[in-house]
Formats: sequence, C-alpha cells, structure tokens
Amino acid sequence: MADSQFRTRFFFPAWSWLKDYNQSKFKSDLLSALIVISLLVPQGMAYAMVAGLPPITGLYASILPMIIYAFIGGSLTLSIGPVALISIMTFATLTPFFEAGSPTYIQAACLLALLVGIISFVLGVLRFGFLIRLISHPVIKSFIIASAVLIAFSQVKYLLDVPLNADNIGEFVKSAWEYLPYTNINTLIFGVISILFLAYLPKILSSTRIKFLGSKAVFIIKALPLVLVFLSIGLVYFFHIDLYGIKTVGEIPSGFPPLTMPYWSWDLVIKLLPGAVMIAMVSFVESISIAQATAFQQRSELNSNQELIALGLANVGAGVTGAFPVTGSLSRTVVNADAGAKTPMSGVISSIFIVIVSLYFTGLFKQLPLAVLAATIIVSIWKLVDFKPFIKTWRYSKADGIAMWITFFGVLCLDISTGLIIGVVSTFILLLWRISRPHIAVIGLVSGTQHFRNINRHEVLTSQKLLSIRIDENLTFLNANNLKEFIISEVSKNPYLEHVVINCSSISNIDLSALETLEEMNAELKKLKIALHLSEVKGPVMDRLKCSNLLNELSGAIHLSHYQAVHNLDPTTYK
Amino acid sequence: MADSQFRTRFFFPAWSWLKDYNQSKFKSDLLSALIVISLLVPQGMAYAMVAGLPPITGLYASILPMIIYAFIGGSLTLSIGPVALISIMTFATLTPFFEAGSPTYIQAACLLALLVGIISFVLGVLRFGFLIRLISHPVIKSFIIASAVLIAFSQVKYLLDVPLNADNIGEFVKSAWEYLPYTNINTLIFGVISILFLAYLPKILSSTRIKFLGSKAVFIIKALPLVLVFLSIGLVYFFHIDLYGIKTVGEIPSGFPPLTMPYWSWDLVIKLLPGAVMIAMVSFVESISIAQATAFQQRSELNSNQELIALGLANVGAGVTGAFPVTGSLSRTVVNADAGAKTPMSGVISSIFIVIVSLYFTGLFKQLPLAVLAATIIVSIWKLVDFKPFIKTWRYSKADGIAMWITFFGVLCLDISTGLIIGVVSTFILLLWRISRPHIAVIGLVSGTQHFRNINRHEVLTSQKLLSIRIDENLTFLNANNLKEFIISEVSKNPYLEHVVINCSSISNIDLSALETLEEMNAELKKLKIALHLSEVKGPVMDRLKCSNLLNELSGAIHLSHYQAVHNLDPTTYK
Repeated sequence: MADSQFRTRFFFPAWSWLKDYNQSKFKSDLLSALIVISLLVPQGMAYAMVAGLPPITGLYASILPMIIYAFIGGSLTLSIGPVALISIMTFATLTPFFEAGSPTYIQAACLLALLVGIISFVLGVLRFGFLIRLISHPVIKSFIIASAVLIAFSQVKYLLDVPLNADNIGEFVKSAWEYLPYTNINTLIFGVISILFLAYLPKILSSTRIKFLGSKAVFIIKALPLVLVFLSIGLVYFFHIDLYGIKTVGEIPSGFPPLTMPYWSWDLVIKLLPGAVMIAMVSFVESISIAQATAFQQRSELNSNQELIALGLANVGAGVTGAFPVTGSLSRTVVNADAGAKTPMSGVISSIFIVIVSLYFTGLFKQLPLAVLAATIIVSIWKLVDFKPFIKTWRYSKADGIAMWITFFGVLCLDISTGLIIGVVSTFILLLWRISRPHIAVIGLVSGTQHFRNINRHEVLTSQKLLSIRIDENLTFLNANNLKEFIISEVSKNPYLEHVVINCSSISNIDLSALETLEEMNAELKKLKIALHLSEVKGPVMDRLKCSNLLNELSGAIHLSHYQAVHNLDPTTYK
Repeated sequence: MADSQFRTRFFFPAWSWLKDYNQSKFKSDLLSALIVISLLVPQGMAYAMVAGLPPITGLYASILPMIIYAFIGGSLTLSIGPVALISIMTFATLTPFFEAGSPTYIQAACLLALLVGIISFVLGVLRFGFLIRLISHPVIKSFIIASAVLIAFSQVKYLLDVPLNADNIGEFVKSAWEYLPYTNINTLIFGVISILFLAYLPKILSSTRIKFLGSKAVFIIKALPLVLVFLSIGLVYFFHIDLYGIKTVGEIPSGFPPLTMPYWSWDLVIKLLPGAVMIAMVSFVESISIAQATAFQQRSELNSNQELIALGLANVGAGVTGAFPVTGSLSRTVVNADAGAKTPMSGVISSIFIVIVSLYFTGLFKQLPLAVLAATIIVSIWKLVDFKPFIKTWRYSKADGIAMWITFFGVLCLDISTGLIIGVVSTFILLLWRISRPHIAVIGLVSGTQHFRNINRHEVLTSQKLLSIRIDENLTFLNANNLKEFIISEVSKNPYLEHVVINCSSISNIDLSALETLEEMNAELKKLKIALHLSEVKGPVMDRLKCSNLLNELSGAIHLSHYQAVHNLDPTTYK
C-alpha cells in the first residue's frame, strides 16, 4: 500500500493535490492566477527583450513550462517562466554566434532551452542533484548582484536609443563614450518618467496618506507595471508620441505557440553546451531555493532530484514551443503565494490566460514603447543591487568574502559566464585550502576535570612522555600529511617522548591516503620506540578501520576516551 | 639568538650538518657514495633512454641537481637524479612536438627541466606547497603502476629492434601487430638473457645456498646491473656480437656538462607548460614521500615548502647543465641510507665521481648494447607492477578504489598525463560527493545514560515533541541543503513537533552558505512555532557565530550538552 502510494507520487506527483481538489480551492487559485497574470505579461515581454528575443516569446515561455511543472514539480506555488537572470545568460550565450533577434538566433534560443532541459533532466534521473548545488551562497549572491548591474546597463540602450554594448563594464563605457552624443532626448525623457513612475509611485501609494485603501494597495502596487503599459500604449495610440522618435515594440505575430522541435545540429549543440550547463546550474539554484522557502510553510516535502527533473521537462517544454530557458521566478512565486494560491492549478489557469492573450490581444502591445519595458526591467532589477551582503559576508568569513568579490569583478569586468565559473572555482580552491590546513592542536588536561584544551590557549597539564593531539577535520589525502608533518616536528622537539595519542572525536572519515599515512607514522614511530594511540574513535570510522591492517599493527591502543588514554599511559601526571 | 639561528637555517640549511662535520662522517659518506654510484651509472643512462635522450644526459642529471639539493634540501639522505617515472613523463611531454633524440628535442628537455624548476620554486616561495599535494595515494599508486607498465612496454622496441609506439595500450598493440614480423631474433635472445640474468640471479644469490656471503650479498645484488653492463661491453668488445645486429649505445661525447641556459621561446614554454606542471606535481609527491620516511628516522624536521624550493632549484640546475627533469629516487635513497650515509655530503661525493666518469670513462659505454639498458629498465620497473594495492584499496574504500581504476585505465588507454589528470579530477569529485552526502541521523537517548545514538541502529528513547539530529560533517555550501531537506522531511512527517535540536559535536566549521541555511531554517521553523536549538557547539565555531545574527534570532537556545538540551525541553520523556 505504502509502496503503491510511493509509486503514484513518483510517477504522477500531481495526484497528491488533484485527488482532493474542490471548488473553494479553485476559487483561490483563479484569483491568484489573475493577479500573477498582471505581473507576468509585462515581465514576460521585458525578459524576452533582455534575452534579445521578440516579446511574444516571453509569453510563450509562460505557457507549457508552467503546465508541465504544475503536474511534475514538488512545490505547490512555484511560478515557472522567464526570469531576468536566465534571460541575460541566454543573451550572453547566444550573441557570440548569432545576431540578436535574427531567425537563427530565435531557433538557437529554443535549442538552448531544450539543452538546458535535457541536462537538468538527465542529472535529475541519475540523482546527480548534488553536482548542481556546487555554487555557494556568496557566489550566487554576488553573481546575481553583478548580473543585475549588467542587466540594468543592457537596457540603457533602449532609454537612449543608441546601440550600447553591455557585455562587461569596459565595453559599456567604451560604447557609451562613442554613442552618447547620438542620444534621442525624447526617448530619454519618456524613459526617465517611466522609471520615476515605477520607482516612486509604489512608495507614495504605500505611505500613510492613502492607508484607507488597506490591503488593496498591495495589489494596486503589483499591477502598476501593467497600468504603465496601458497608459503608454494609450499615449502612442491617442497622442502619437511615437512620431517624436519614441520606438515601440511593433507588429507582434498573434497565435498559438508553435509546437516544433528546434533544429538539432551537433555543431551548434557543442557550441551552446557550456552556456547550457551554466544556465542549468543557475536556474536550478534559483528555483530550488524559492521552492524550499514555500515548501517549509506548506510542510510539504521537496526532493531536489525530482525538482531537477521537473525543471528539466519544463525547459524541454519551453524549447519545443518557441521559447527560451525558464526557471522559478521569485517575484511571481511570492505574489502567487500571498494572493492565496492553494495548488499548482493556479499556474495552469494563468497559462490558459496567457494563451488567450497571445491568441487575441497581441495587437494591443504593438504600440508599447520599448523604453517602458526597459524602465520596468531597470526598476525591478535595481532592487537586487545591494552591497550589504558583501559586508556581512566579509565580517563572517574572509574566504567567502574573497569568493564573493572575485565573482563580482569577474562578472562585471569579464563576462557573465566567465565570472560565475571563476567564482565557483575560487570557492572550491578556498574549500580545499581550508581542508588542507586543518586545525591541529596539542592538548592538555584541564586540572580537576576530564576535559582537554589547546595548550596554547589554556593553562593545562601536560607530560613530557606523552603527546596529545586533536585534529578538527576529517582525515583525507588533502591534510593527512599536515598531521604527519606536525608529528614529525613535535617528535624532533622532544627526545623523551614515549606515546602519541590522537584524539579522533572530530574525525568522521579517514580515506585511504590518510589511513596509509597513519600506518606509515605508526611504523616509523615504532622504530623510534614511540607508541601511537587513538582515542574517541567514532563507530563508523572504527568499522572502516576494521577492514584495514592499522588496528593489528598499531603500536599503541584504541582508547574509549582521551582521559582514559592519558590516565593509563602516564598515571603520575594525569591523576 | 633563536631568530638568527632560524635565519641561518632558512637561508643556508646545510649549516645544520656542515657545522659539526668530521672525518668519521666523511668515511661513511664516501662508502655510501661509492655504492650509490654503482647503481646510478646504469640507471642514469637507462632513464635518459626512457626520456628519449642520449645516455650521457642521464649522467649530467646526476651532478648539479644532487649538489644543489645537498645544500638546500631538508633530507639528509635523499638521492636526487633521473627517475623512470619522470623520464617517461618527459618523453610523453616532448614527443608531440619534436623527434626523440634530435637536437631540438634535447634543448626542449633542458627547457622542460627549467620550467619544472621554476614552477616548483615559485610554488614553494609562495607557500603553495599544499596545492601540489592534491594527488591522493590511490591515484599516485595507480598512476605509478600503470606508468610502469607503459615504461616496460616502451622498452620492448629495444628488445625486438623494431619501432613500436607505447603512448598507450592501443597504439602499442597496433604497432606490435604491424612490426612484430621484422623482429631481430639475435637482439631478442640477447635481451631475454639479460632480463633473466637481472631477474633471477638476485634470487639465487639471496637464497640460502650462499648465505655465507652475509651482508655482502646485498651489495653484490645492488651492483648486478653494473656487472651486466661490463659483461655485455666485454662481449661486444671481444666477441663483436654487434655484428649480429645487436645495436649499441654508440659514440658518447665525453666532457663536463655544458653550462648553458636553454633557449627560451615563449611559444615553446606555453606548449610545455601543462606537462611541466604535471611533472612538478609528480616529482614533488615522489620526493617528499621518500624524504619524509627518512626524516622520521633521523628525527629531523621537514618543511614541504622548503623541499619544494630545493627540488625546484635542483631542476633549474638540471636545466642549465644539459639534463632533464629530476626528482628523489626511492631505490638510490634506500641504498644510500642503508649503506650508512650520514649527511648530504654523500650526494656531493657521488656527483664528483659522476663528473669523473663523464670526463674520462664515457668511451667505455660506447659498446654497451641498448638491449641491456632496456632489460635493466624492464626488470627494475616490473617490480612496481603489483595489483595488491587495488584489492586493499577497494576493500577499504569504494571511492578510493574507483579513483584508482579510473587512473589506471586513463593512463593505459589514453596517455600518461591525461590519465593522471582524470584520476586527480575523479578524487575531487568523489571527495565533494562525500562532503555533499553527509551522514545525518535522528538520535535518541540510550536509557540510563547520557549518550545519544542513531534511532535506526539502537533501542533509544525519543519524543514526539522533539527532533534530535546529528550531522557528521562540517556544514558548508555543499551539504547545508541536505540538512535542510532532511529537516523539511522530518517536519512534514511529524505534526506534533515543537523543538528541533541539532547536535554540533562533529562540526568544526560553518561557512556562510550553511550559516544562511541555518538562519532560513530558523525563520521558517519559527513561523511554524517550532524552536531550533543547537547543542555542543565547539569554541571556534561559536566565535564565528558571534559575528552573525543567528544567535540573536535563534528561536531556541544553545545548549552545552545534548543531554541538557533534551532534558530541559522535554523532562517527562528524558529524565
């Protein structure tokens, strides 16, 4: 019975919420879907623009992926679709090979989504979810902040109406220097007003003066981008401001998303693969951290491999419907949950609305000024640019702080993917650096107790006959040699030594290299008539050691507690 | 005073043994130098051949490097010079670019030694010694075994006198299939007899029948390769066996090693750099492990950065004297120590002898058959081919076993450097895999004690109100999420939960990602009215946590012992 339940859950996770779906849940889901939509339509079009794609593809990216995730994903409220960060990574992956917006570029974007999907899916099936979690928080945070700066910079060209390059800071400054004199002032004024509208109106609306609106104010604020969209369309339609040089979105083909397999060329696949791997990693990190926050509150379980599979299939869905890579969106997920969504049906409903929009209402957006979309992006993305995490991180851990700055400057000064790779590699080097420099202390007895402390920090009892050592790290090939060097050095200092006791209370694993280092030390010390002892060895470590020769050959003994060890070996000093 | 001693030691380490050098030490050193020489001359020439270089360069490689190490190195008995493994790596690095034995090839070998020297020296000065220790024992062992097979295969061409390719097993089989019919039978017979001589005579000599020779037998066995060398030279000189098609070494230019800077071309440097890095790593691993074994016995200290500097300068010495990369030789170091060498003066003396040999006795070796050198190499190298380490490793640790087989097949089936890289990368992935899958257990109280054990393994007390967890690994970005998933899953199972207590006794480090995961969990659990507690937090970890907000915001408390924690939180269950 439990087994069949497990199988149902595994092969059709949606059963867990579909089986007791009812009208009251539907009402909540419908309401939240409507609110999400008002955010999703402008965001979708804007993020398509960030990705260098026609705005309509942003709508396509919000249809099938969302439906697929609703039925396979583990989170009840996660909203899947286009996201700024993934869009700019898509842009950075494709522009070296194709001209942004060209038909081959659009084809390649679909192929990229398909690749991201396949990579995520395969990793999930092989239970390699752990591999994709290799990005530490400081690196991902720094990456998001630096990318936000680049995304904002990439939109400046729509505000000025000049062709700026925002691949990195250097390119941006260079192209700005060249093109700034050709700025279209009308577009700039219109764009700045849009930014002020989006940035300050919410502050005014949420201020005390209009408190009477109550909880409705929140929804009004959320709908402001959509309000601006319709306002500006009205300005173009009625007052023809486009005649002053303000560019608009232009003709959008209406219709159902095209259900086609992207053109598969191995040559192109190999070119896009590195970018696809990076996007798969980042989209998973984004998605799982959003899903986890909501899973906690709903007391629902969340399996990272299952999530990887769901996200993978959602991206495959994006790839075969003319869209680009997608992931979980933080802003829309929060809105969805706050608006009272009960089940993933909310996502299904909003997809249906998006289908209706892309079938019948695309004509509306023809006259939407590009500067409005750029303003939407800049305002929403600029909230992410916050340097407090840098200070907090540096204060807590220098290693994490270093990784964070490396990532930041890598993204800004080189490019978005190289920056991330450098950041990830630097975290590993710093992790290995730490593992390879374990804290090793000579310890002594705190008199009157059975506790041992570092002799350099505390007033403790020691004995010339006996060396007590504690190492605060698992013993592996990276650090076993440090222990050996430490012991060689201590042995060379003290000619009266008879016993070396290693306190193993912090050791949960001893790999083969470390085992052999212990065996060598045991043999070498034995020749010097010094006995090697271990104390407080953990159960699992002991199980492993039983498969080796160390226990037979050990010149000393294994002691249950460190106090027992020193007390037995030198009872005159340690009473 | 202590400071000036330190400075002397740092800038002129030889002072420690030169300051009380005397006649009796000199006698011991002289004797051991003579014994080492008898091994070094044939080995040096043979390993030069493995490296694809003229035999004389093997002698050059034993002069300046040995003198440099004697004055800078930390080990008293380490014998620096040509070594089979480094020679075949030199061969593998150079053959893609030059024809073995050609003048440009010889030039490039010197440049390679110089590069290896510079890399080691710089890493040593920057105290990056730890970086070079990234190769685990199973990988290095497997690498040595697989390389030994390749080295033996690479010498088969001299036994058969046909041009075989031993870059990897595939190439070897292919070329053997093609050229086997052209084998020179006389050379083969002569080579096989040489192999039998070197392989079985030591066994006969060390058998019971000639026990009367006592300890002398050991020295006779060590000198056997030299005996064979002179025997075969005699055969060529007196019986002209070279007329039957048995090839000899040929003219060797006598003289002092050429003291010249190798031709430095950036283009070539960049080509050789990857190989140089690999050789630097392997030579350091070889050298330090040999040096450490002897350092233990002499109760002398050994600093890995200092060793790296000494090895680096020794290789620079090789590069500017027409030689190729060198490292510590296990066989010669053991012979040196066993023969009673007291100080590095032994190495200096043997260098002087080698200078004399290369000045006046190179004519002797003109008529040495190549098959004899090949036999010397095959016999000495074949002893390394031993599959017991594979079994031992597999039994102790599957992860180490996998890395070992990956390296083995990588070296044999691809090539020597790629195999090593794959092996090293696989150990890291396996290490990260382990760190990212920490052992997390729900623990309960063993009744009547204050000890806690895994609830799945032992009969223990638990409470519905309280979840006790222990994680056996440092909390980092690689595994903090596992803890979170584990807690999400436990929370979803138990609706009566009021407290979560994490036992931190195995945690020596919490990085920022893990700290934030704890903060998130604390916040999420607080919303569910579940308090998060920590117990048995180590001093250094606590110091770090004080720099964070976690302690202020923690919904539960920090408890000194896990027993205190559960006893305070649920006294009815845990009495």
